[in-house]
Amino acid sequence: MEEREISQAVIRRLPRYYRYLGELLEHGVERISSNDLSRRMKVTASQIRQDLNNFGGFGQQGYGYNVKYLYTEIGKILGLEEDHRMIIIGAGNLGQALANYAAFEKRGFILKGIFDVNPRLAGMTIRGVPVRMIEELGEFVKDNEVEIAALTIPKDKAIEVAEFLVVNGVRAIWNFAHTDLNLPEHVIVENVHLSESLMQLSYKINRFNKEHKK
Amino acid sequence: MEEREISQAVIRRLPRYYRYLGELLEHGVERISSNDLSRRMKVTASQIRQDLNNFGGFGQQGYGYNVKYLYTEIGKILGLEEDHRMIIIGAGNLGQALANYAAFEKRGFILKGIFDVNPRLAGMTIRGVPVRMIEELGEFVKDNEVEIAALTIPKDKAIEVAEFLVVNGVRAIWNFAHTDLNLPEHVIVENVHLSESLMQLSYKINRFNKEHKK
Repeated sequence: MEEREISQAVIRRLPRYYRYLGELLEHGVERISSNDLSRRMKVTASQIRQDLNNFGGFGQQGYGYNVKYLYTEIGKILGLEEDHRMIIIGAGNLGQALANYAAFEKRGFILKGIFDVNPRLAGMTIRGVPVRMIEELGEFVKDNEVEIAALTIPKDKAIEVAEFLVVNGVRAIWNFAHTDLNLPEHVIVENVHLSESLMQLSYKINRFNKEHKK
Repeated sequence: MEEREISQAVIRRLPRYYRYLGELLEHGVERISSNDLSRRMKVTASQIRQDLNNFGGFGQQGYGYNVKYLYTEIGKILGLEEDHRMIIIGAGNLGQALANYAAFEKRGFILKGIFDVNPRLAGMTIRGVPVRMIEELGEFVKDNEVEIAALTIPKDKAIEVAEFLVVNGVRAIWNFAHTDLNLPEHVIVENVHLSESLMQLSYKINRFNKEHKK
């Protein structure tokens, strides 16, 4: 199927569809109308139809969506049917939180290694994956054909490490460092800036306070 | 100053402006043109002007932006000049990562307490803040006038706990649980769904692969 250019907003909603459909599947629901899905997800039914039309539809007039089929197809669009070889750089609390999250594995994100600079962490394992020293990074990435690296290290190290990873063949960075990475165009970067998320929250509190004082 | 309704996209960009301006300040830069800022941030200069015009501008023709002033003003818009009393529910790796992140405190997010159900964590402290048992939650939240709660607990507990928090006066939830919370309209929710972020990353890898096979 030929796909058009998909907007960022649609891409942001797809994983949420996937999550809801997964929950429906778990509850044994076999099909669902766009109206029902709309009510659950608090998105308009026309929004749902429009979003899914980007990928060719999937619905049948008067029947609704086949949950299993739609779940599988969205999974394919999200690239979840293939395995992705992943490493985590930074074995601090955040790195450990990611490493411990077994659900990633279920989605095909296979944790191959965890790296840190702290020699006291050497030999520690998280879900069976040993923490390695950062000196081994280049060789490991090449030998294991690592595709994704999650960066949970301080911002002053992140740029350098990210460039090193890319030189050694890593194609996608899941960036938790509080900085932009400015990597070559072909490298895929997904940022999770927690402090920015918290600021958005306080922005909304601030707005609310102002509106309700007036 | 009267403010118009600001779009989500602008709100998402504001913390990033704030971050860049903070870095400029650290480097002793006193003023910057929208063109310079544009080059650094990889946003068009007209986008920057347009975004800041939502809040009344701040620029002077031919002078550019006063970095300190703009930083302070954006901080005010983001609600960072007031203190926000925060707790974390869930003292696992992710909760600990958040608790250890001292930069939040600098921005006015004051960590008042950390809660967990696991009695083995009772008495542990993180940056001087003790981990308390979840039974104390209701009273603590009221006594300390907690404004923000970060939820880093499994999804099957999150909805119930969030509702309990709201009943006890919490006004904003920073939600890391993999579920939507469906709280009353006046409650502010900021979601950080890490698995959805990772799916967006794999979507982009998948797209890239398809485009480059053709």
